[in-house]
Amino acid sequence: MRIDGLQYANWSEKVFKQFRTGGLDAVHVTIAYHENFRETVLNFEQWNRWFEQYPDLILKGTTARDVDEARNTNRTAIFFGFQNPSPIEDDIGLVEIVHTLGARFMQLTYNNQSLLATGCYENEDTGLTRMGKQVVKEMNRVGLVVDMSHSADRSTIEAAEYSTRPIAITHANPHTWSPALRNKKDSVIQAVVDNGGMLGFSLYPHHLKDKSNCTLTGFCEMVAATAERFGLKHLGIGSDLCQDQPDSVVEWMRVGRWSKTVDYGEGSASAPGFPPMPTWFRDNRDFGNLATGLQSVGFTTDEIDDVLGLNWYRFFEENFGPQTTKDHGA
Amino acid sequence: MRIDGLQYANWSEKVFKQFRTGGLDAVHVTIAYHENFRETVLNFEQWNRWFEQYPDLILKGTTARDVDEARNTNRTAIFFGFQNPSPIEDDIGLVEIVHTLGARFMQLTYNNQSLLATGCYENEDTGLTRMGKQVVKEMNRVGLVVDMSHSADRSTIEAAEYSTRPIAITHANPHTWSPALRNKKDSVIQAVVDNGGMLGFSLYPHHLKDKSNCTLTGFCEMVAATAERFGLKHLGIGSDLCQDQPDSVVEWMRVGRWSKTVDYGEGSASAPGFPPMPTWFRDNRDFGNLATGLQSVGFTTDEIDDVLGLNWYRFFEENFGPQTTKDHGA
Repeated sequence: MRIDGLQYANWSEKVFKQFRTGGLDAVHVTIAYHENFRETVLNFEQWNRWFEQYPDLILKGTTARDVDEARNTNRTAIFFGFQNPSPIEDDIGLVEIVHTLGARFMQLTYNNQSLLATGCYENEDTGLTRMGKQVVKEMNRVGLVVDMSHSADRSTIEAAEYSTRPIAITHANPHTWSPALRNKKDSVIQAVVDNGGMLGFSLYPHHLKDKSNCTLTGFCEMVAATAERFGLKHLGIGSDLCQDQPDSVVEWMRVGRWSKTVDYGEGSASAPGFPPMPTWFRDNRDFGNLATGLQSVGFTTDEIDDVLGLNWYRFFEENFGPQTTKDHGA
Repeated sequence: MRIDGLQYANWSEKVFKQFRTGGLDAVHVTIAYHENFRETVLNFEQWNRWFEQYPDLILKGTTARDVDEARNTNRTAIFFGFQNPSPIEDDIGLVEIVHTLGARFMQLTYNNQSLLATGCYENEDTGLTRMGKQVVKEMNRVGLVVDMSHSADRSTIEAAEYSTRPIAITHANPHTWSPALRNKKDSVIQAVVDNGGMLGFSLYPHHLKDKSNCTLTGFCEMVAATAERFGLKHLGIGSDLCQDQPDSVVEWMRVGRWSKTVDYGEGSASAPGFPPMPTWFRDNRDFGNLATGLQSVGFTTDEIDDVLGLNWYRFFEENFGPQTTKDHGA
């Protein structure tokens, strides 16, 4: 079982075929960075077209059962997520609407302060807002997973504790390994896993030790150390693969419509674009290398299966449907 | 089995309880007259709130199986429809989006010319437009039923013939019985039933012979005559019940935002509001009277079941899901 917990490629038949080469049974894809509701609906529409055009390669995923269906028919199930709450605007009723349309993850913030919480690039972190608490409760009710990948520490810990269902950091690495602003401190990871949540390891060079020069062994040793400390069952992959995107898209991610001046995010004025991927993870075709790397640092076959897919699968199974009485006790 | 093929009440707990008193297993409710996409989404949101507030009375219906579920749990399944294509604006991708959100019927026009076809109040009827043909094809593909209740004759006949799946006139009566502009000529009904479609009989006084004074026997004799001529299996009820609506809503239905001067529709300057309902069909509580009336004009128990619910049930079963190869031959 192989599941990627986050990608935002420039989608095409080529990429969908590479899903198959890499043996991906499911991928969580980003369909909104700064889009408002109507613009996000246009992105759902675009995916409907791709499902119609490439029925032999991909299918729409809304439950864990769709991962099985994809696996049984040699296809990849596509699960939708937002990196920002902009699609729900200021309307809590849109939480259920976007869930009905297929959204399964929503970040409460993307770097900046949002209506719901604080992003990881702000100086002040005030935690969950009034609307933030209402929206987390509503997300819990319908089965839309809280993702705090781009959120600030206090906001993330508060979300993990306030949420009555497990939350996720779909794509980031431990800050102790690589101290990027986007990587997560131990206290943050601990709060997430204490509440049953998941951490997806990122392959985005800015999140890696030695960036593009990070070694496969170094990456896999970090996975082993994180499993040791936080428990294997809470770990997956969230590659953050942004394959084939032009620099204009990087700029849209970083600046949206919120600023008139350029913000380089994790890049810089001298290196504003995407850094090169590590040689051992060029794109979806290289998922097998992760299996090899994990094996070489001592993971068993079952453990590799857990980290590369089964942990996400179980998380999907429990968190994409309406809340049941059982969940309230979580 | 009792199903009403169209209502637009001022929804409340009172009305939902009256569904139960009347034994309604399912109701097709209008959620858009002139609303654009975003406004229609607000109406989906309002219904989500009602489903959350009144889980013992109503549930969201998307397939015929939900009618069984409602029946088995003493509730009423609510199916959504639009009386106008305004919710899809000029964007064919919204057809699948609104279907995913739960829409199951869409009128191609509401009295006026639309982007898709001609309404029954226009002087010229030019049939399906270029976009109209594309949208009918897309509605067929996803399982959104074409409803021509407020459309002009040629447009209706063309839609019945162009559509590869059965269409519906959810709420109207035969023009030969009561020559209202909204009632349907025999040639129109014939085209709809020839292609497997349904006619839902309206209880709106402007569609009845002698309007508010129409007798139950007169209404049921008309049902019998229509069954004789067009076949019992194509007939159901579409009461057009607009219970508890203020005159401002009647004005919204008739004028929307398309005119600055008042249009009285089927009313007049001296009687602009809703006419009184016939004494034997005040509201949902009186569905039993229809059964009694049909029995008194000679219908068997099975035939009554067909007209009051089973025919719609079978239509729902075949027309609310994605198109299969079988349908293409229809």
